[in-house]
Amino acid sequence: VDTASTIAALRTPCLVLDEVRMERNLARMRAGLQRLGVAARPHVKTCKSLPVVQRMLGAANGPVTVSTLAEAEHCFAGGITDVLYAVGIAPGKLDDVLDLRARGCDLAVIVDHEDAAAAVAARGAAIPALIEIDSDDHRAGVRPDADALLEIAAALARGGVVRGVMTHAGGSYDCREPRAIAAVAERERAAVVAAATRLRAAGHAAPVVSVGSTPTATFAERLDGVTEARTGVHVFMDLVMVGLGVCTLGDVALSVACTVIGHQRTKHWLITDGGWMALSRDRGTASQTRDRGFGLVADANGHPLDELIVVSTNQEHGIVARADGAPFDLQAFPIGTVLRVLPNHACATAAQHDRYHVVRGGDAIVATWPRFSGW
Amino acid sequence: VDTASTIAALRTPCLVLDEVRMERNLARMRAGLQRLGVAARPHVKTCKSLPVVQRMLGAANGPVTVSTLAEAEHCFAGGITDVLYAVGIAPGKLDDVLDLRARGCDLAVIVDHEDAAAAVAARGAAIPALIEIDSDDHRAGVRPDADALLEIAAALARGGVVRGVMTHAGGSYDCREPRAIAAVAERERAAVVAAATRLRAAGHAAPVVSVGSTPTATFAERLDGVTEARTGVHVFMDLVMVGLGVCTLGDVALSVACTVIGHQRTKHWLITDGGWMALSRDRGTASQTRDRGFGLVADANGHPLDELIVVSTNQEHGIVARADGAPFDLQAFPIGTVLRVLPNHACATAAQHDRYHVVRGGDAIVATWPRFSGW
Repeated sequence: VDTASTIAALRTPCLVLDEVRMERNLARMRAGLQRLGVAARPHVKTCKSLPVVQRMLGAANGPVTVSTLAEAEHCFAGGITDVLYAVGIAPGKLDDVLDLRARGCDLAVIVDHEDAAAAVAARGAAIPALIEIDSDDHRAGVRPDADALLEIAAALARGGVVRGVMTHAGGSYDCREPRAIAAVAERERAAVVAAATRLRAAGHAAPVVSVGSTPTATFAERLDGVTEARTGVHVFMDLVMVGLGVCTLGDVALSVACTVIGHQRTKHWLITDGGWMALSRDRGTASQTRDRGFGLVADANGHPLDELIVVSTNQEHGIVARADGAPFDLQAFPIGTVLRVLPNHACATAAQHDRYHVVRGGDAIVATWPRFSGW
Repeated sequence: VDTASTIAALRTPCLVLDEVRMERNLARMRAGLQRLGVAARPHVKTCKSLPVVQRMLGAANGPVTVSTLAEAEHCFAGGITDVLYAVGIAPGKLDDVLDLRARGCDLAVIVDHEDAAAAVAARGAAIPALIEIDSDDHRAGVRPDADALLEIAAALARGGVVRGVMTHAGGSYDCREPRAIAAVAERERAAVVAAATRLRAAGHAAPVVSVGSTPTATFAERLDGVTEARTGVHVFMDLVMVGLGVCTLGDVALSVACTVIGHQRTKHWLITDGGWMALSRDRGTASQTRDRGFGLVADANGHPLDELIVVSTNQEHGIVARADGAPFDLQAFPIGTVLRVLPNHACATAAQHDRYHVVRGGDAIVATWPRFSGW
C-alpha cells in the first residue's frame, strides 16, 4: 500500500491529502492571525500527524494545542516542547503531566472547577494552568463575571501557576453566515479579556489570553487583548467549513478514496467500499443549509462530481446518489472506479485512519504520513 | 495503562469489556442457532480482536466473516483459515485475495454485478464467491428473481466457483418489535433460498446459503434451507439491540470508561473526557422509541445510573445530563469520578479504540486484548 504510485493503486478506502491545498490553507490562516496581531497555537487534534504539525508551525518546538495526553506525548517525542492540553484536566492524569514536564515539556493544563484547581495546586510543582472561560454556553468553562473565577485562581495559586485564560467558541459552528461568526468572535474575545482583567486586578499575572476556533479566527474583526489563537481544522478544511463560508470547495484538502463495488440500477445508486468506518458517522452538514449526506463525491483527481453525495452508509458500504435522488448515468462509473469523498468534518473522518496518502494536485502519491491516535 | 489493576487506574477514555456478559451473549446465540439448525459464521467486524474471535468460535480455524481484507489477514495470522469477506469485491483487491488463498486461507468473496463476477473469473484461479442477494431493498445485492442472478452466476462460473448465496437483512435494524424482526427474518430466508434454488436448477452447486444479522438470527422462527448465519454485534450487544428487544441492558458487555472533569451547575450537566472520539458519532437510538443520546451512563461497576445519558459530545468532551433535562445532584459525581458509558452501537464505539480492558463483573482488570483496524 505504501509504495502505491497513484491513488488508483491504493487499497481503498483510505485517506488522501492534497498538500497544495493544505499549504494554501495554512498560509491564509497565518496571514489572518498576523493581521489580527495574535500568535498562532495550532491545534493538533485534526491532523494528529507530525509531518502535518511541523508544516503548521513557525518554529520546530511549537507552540501547539492538543486534545489528549497521547497527542502531547507524540508531539514531545517529535521535538515540540510548548504544549497546551486544552481539555479540563482529570486529577488522575497529573502524574503523566508531571512526567512530561520533568522531561522538559512545558505542558500547561486547563481547569474550570475549584476542585480541579486544588488538585493541580496540591502537586506543589508549579504546573501552569489556564482557566477555561465559558463564552457561549456551549460546553465547559466559568463565566467571566462568576465568583468562581477568582476562587479557582486562588485555589490554583496555592501550588500551581495561573498562566491565564482560554475559551473555545464552539457555538460558531451553529452560525449561518460570516457576520454572525464575527459577532461570536467578538463575544469570545470580550469574555476572555474580561476574565483576564479580573484575574490581573486580583493580583494574578495571567499573561496568556487564548481563543480558538477556525470560524472565529477567520472572521474576527479584532482580537485586542488576546495573545494567541488555537485553530485546527483550517489545515484541511471540510464541508462544514464550506457551509459556514470559511472556505470554498476548492480548499478542502482531505478526502477518502473509495472504489465502486456495485450498481443498484432501479434505485440510481452506486455502492462503494467507503462506509462509515472510513468516512465517520459525522453528519455535520445535516443542520446546515446544504446537507451533503456523509460527504460530497469527487473523481479520482479531486474534482467534485455534480450533485453526487454519499446518501447513506453501513460499516463498509457507502451508497452514492444524487442529492435530489434523480437518475444519473451509472455506466459512467464502472465497477472498480475510484472516487474521492470530501468529508463533512475533517477531524472525525481523519480519525478513522492511520495514515495520509499525500498528493500535490492530481493523483500521484508523493508521500505517506502516519497518524497517531488513542489517549 | 496496561498494568492498571482497576478501572479507576486506567487513563480515560478507554474501552471496558465485561467478559462474563460476553460469554453469556455468545452462549445464547450459539444455543439459538443450534435450535434453528444452522452453522455459525461469526462476524469479526464488531470485535476486531483475536482473543474475542477465538471465544466466538467452535473451532480454532473458523469459520468467520470479515468486512475488510485487513480483518482477513489478521484472522489468518491467528490461525483462522475459513473466511468469508462479506463486502462486494473490488477487482483491485483480487491480488491480495489470491495472495491469502495461495498461503492456505480459504477466503471467499462476494459479488452482485456481472462485471465483478467476470473480474473474479478472469483470474482463472477458482476463487469461490457467493452472490449477494437483496432481501429488503436496504443496500446491495440482486433480487432473487432477477435475470441478473443467473447472468452473474454464468460469468462467475467461467473461472471462479459459485459457492452459493448470501444476504444481510439490514432493514431489521429499523424494526420496532420482535414480531416485525421475525417477519424480516422470514423474508431474508425466503430470498436466499429462492436464489439458491434457481442457481441449482441452472446447474450450479451453490452449497452455501448464508444469512446474517443479530436481530434476525435472534427472532427467526425457522431457517430451513439456510446453511449458516453471520452475526457479530451479539458478542457485545448495545443500546440499539436493547431498543430492538434483542437483549436487556444487563447484557451490554461493552462500555467506555470516562472521567468527570467539570460541573455546569446552572445547566445540570456533568462534563467528562468521553467525547465523540471515544464514543463515536453513532446516534443509532435516535430513531428508536427511547433515544439514549450518545450513550447511557453507568457507574464504575457498570450499573446504569437512573436517567443519565450523554446528551452531547465534542471531540474530547461529553456532556452528561438527565434525559429529561431535570436537575440532579452533581455533588454525587465529584471531579475525578469514573463513569462507564454503554454505547449505542458497539461496532462504531469499539472502532474508536485500540484495545479492550477486560473485567469479569466488578472493576478489576483481568486482561488487555488488542484490537486491529484499518483496511
